[in-house]
Amino acid sequence: MTYCVGIRLNAGLVFLSDSRTNAGVDAISTFRKMMVYEKPGDRFMTLLSAGNLSISQSVREILQTEKLSNGDGEPITIWNATSMFDAARVLGSAVRRIYEQDGPALRNAGIDFNCSMIFGGQIGDEAMRLFLVYSAGNFIEATRETCFFQIGESKYGKPILDRMLNPTTPLAEAAKCALVSMDSTVKSNLSVGLPLDLLVYEAGSLKSDKIVVIDEHNPYFQMIHNTWGQRLREVFEGIDDPCWNQDAVAHPLIVPSERFTPMGKIQRPEDRIV
Amino acid sequence: MTYCVGIRLNAGLVFLSDSRTNAGVDAISTFRKMMVYEKPGDRFMTLLSAGNLSISQSVREILQTEKLSNGDGEPITIWNATSMFDAARVLGSAVRRIYEQDGPALRNAGIDFNCSMIFGGQIGDEAMRLFLVYSAGNFIEATRETCFFQIGESKYGKPILDRMLNPTTPLAEAAKCALVSMDSTVKSNLSVGLPLDLLVYEAGSLKSDKIVVIDEHNPYFQMIHNTWGQRLREVFEGIDDPCWNQDAVAHPLIVPSERFTPMGKIQRPEDRIV
Repeated sequence: MTYCVGIRLNAGLVFLSDSRTNAGVDAISTFRKMMVYEKPGDRFMTLLSAGNLSISQSVREILQTEKLSNGDGEPITIWNATSMFDAARVLGSAVRRIYEQDGPALRNAGIDFNCSMIFGGQIGDEAMRLFLVYSAGNFIEATRETCFFQIGESKYGKPILDRMLNPTTPLAEAAKCALVSMDSTVKSNLSVGLPLDLLVYEAGSLKSDKIVVIDEHNPYFQMIHNTWGQRLREVFEGIDDPCWNQDAVAHPLIVPSERFTPMGKIQRPEDRIV
Repeated sequence: MTYCVGIRLNAGLVFLSDSRTNAGVDAISTFRKMMVYEKPGDRFMTLLSAGNLSISQSVREILQTEKLSNGDGEPITIWNATSMFDAARVLGSAVRRIYEQDGPALRNAGIDFNCSMIFGGQIGDEAMRLFLVYSAGNFIEATRETCFFQIGESKYGKPILDRMLNPTTPLAEAAKCALVSMDSTVKSNLSVGLPLDLLVYEAGSLKSDKIVVIDEHNPYFQMIHNTWGQRLREVFEGIDDPCWNQDAVAHPLIVPSERFTPMGKIQRPEDRIV
C-alpha cells in the first residue's frame, strides 16, 4: 500500500509520501512515489501516486511527453500548459492512455485498474492549485474548505489533519502535521513505511529546494516520533478518567440520556431483544 | 458503517459501540450494536456487531436459542456453555445458520454476506476471553500481545489504541482510551455517530452495572471531545517545527540519508525518470 498527503495553504504547498509497495505481504519493496516537474521561474508541479505500481510508473513515464489536443493550436503538455487545470487534464489523459493500453489485459487477469494521484503546483501568475486524480482520469480540486488530499492508507492519519489544518496554517506547521500523520500511519499499518519524501513549496516561488528524503535515522523525524508518542501519553494521562460514581464529579459519565436508555440485558433465552 | 471496540485487560473488559447505520448516505439511521447476556454470578457476555444490519440483527435474535450439538449430551447454548470458547462456537453456529437461510438470496442480489462481531465475557471460574467472529462463523481470540479488537471503521481510531493499551492498563483508562478513539473516528467519518454504548466489566464479577449510553449532551464525552482536541493542539504547537536551515538546530531535518537521495527534478520532457 502507500500513504501520501498533499496540502494547499495560503502560504504554499506541502507534499509527503512514503515509499513502501507491496504485492502481498511477502513481496514488500521500496519505491518512491513523489515526482517533481520544475521549470524555475515558469512552473512547478509535484505528483504523488498510489495504487497499482505498474500503472502509476507508466503514467509517470508518459506524463513528460503526453500531448492533449488543443483543437487547432499546438497540443497541450505539462510543459506548455498555461494553467494547472490544463496540466491536470494532461495527467488525466496520460492515465486514460495507460488504461487503453493495459486496462483490458488487467481486467482479463482479474485486476482492477487502480491508481490515484495527487497533483499540485503553480504555473506563471496563476494561483497554486492542488488536484486529486482518479483512475478514470477525472479529478477534483482542493478548496478553502477542504485544503488537503490523501491517497492510499489515508484513514489512520486523517484525524490529526482534520484537527490541525486550515488554509492559514504556516508551511512549517503543516509539514510537521503531515509528518505526525505519517508517523501514526506507519505505526499502525505495516504496508506504509520509510523512507519518506517531503517537499515544501512557497507560494509564488515557481521552484523549490525544500525537498528532503527522511529515513529512520533522520533526527527531526525521530524527534517527532518519540516526542509525539510521549506527549500524547502525558495528555492522555492528564485527562480525568471516567467515574461511575456520579457524585461530586466535574464531568459525570452517567447522566440520563434524554432520548436513549442504556442497553438492556438479556438474562434468559425468552427475553425479548429491544 | 459502524465502529466498535472490545478490550481485554488483566482488570477486566471494556466494550464501546457507536450506533450509526447507513445504507448509502441518504439512508442513515440509529441502531444500537451492543447486546449484553448476563446470568449474575454464573456468566456475563457482551456482543458487538458490524456489517449488514439484517444479518447481525438476525444473528442476535437466534443467538439466545441457538443450540450446538454436543455429540450425545445436552446441546450447548450460550446459557449452558461451560467456556467462552464454546459460547463463541454457538455464536459461530448462529452466523452459519443465518448464512444458510439468507446467503443464497443475498448472493443473487449481488450482496456480500458481511458481518463481523466482537464477543467477550466470562463464564464461571474460567478466565475472561474476547473473540473476533468473522462472516464464516470462524473466530480468533485476543491475547496478551493483541489485547483489543475493532470492527467497522477501525483505522481512524487505531493509532491511539496502539499507543496506549496493554494488558496492565487500568479499566477506567482503557474506557477513556476507547472514547478518545471513538471521538477521532466520529470526527473523521460521517458513517460513525452517537449515541455510544459503553460497558465496563470487572474481572471475576460475573455481572456488570457499568453500562451507559452516551449522547451528545454527556458531560464526560463532551469534556473528552473538547479537551483532547485542545490539548492535542497544544502538544502539536509545542513540538519544534521542521527547520530547513540545518545550522544550530537540535533536530535537523536535512541530513544526508545513507541509502537514499532526494527525489530528482524533471526539468525537461527528455529527462529520465530514476
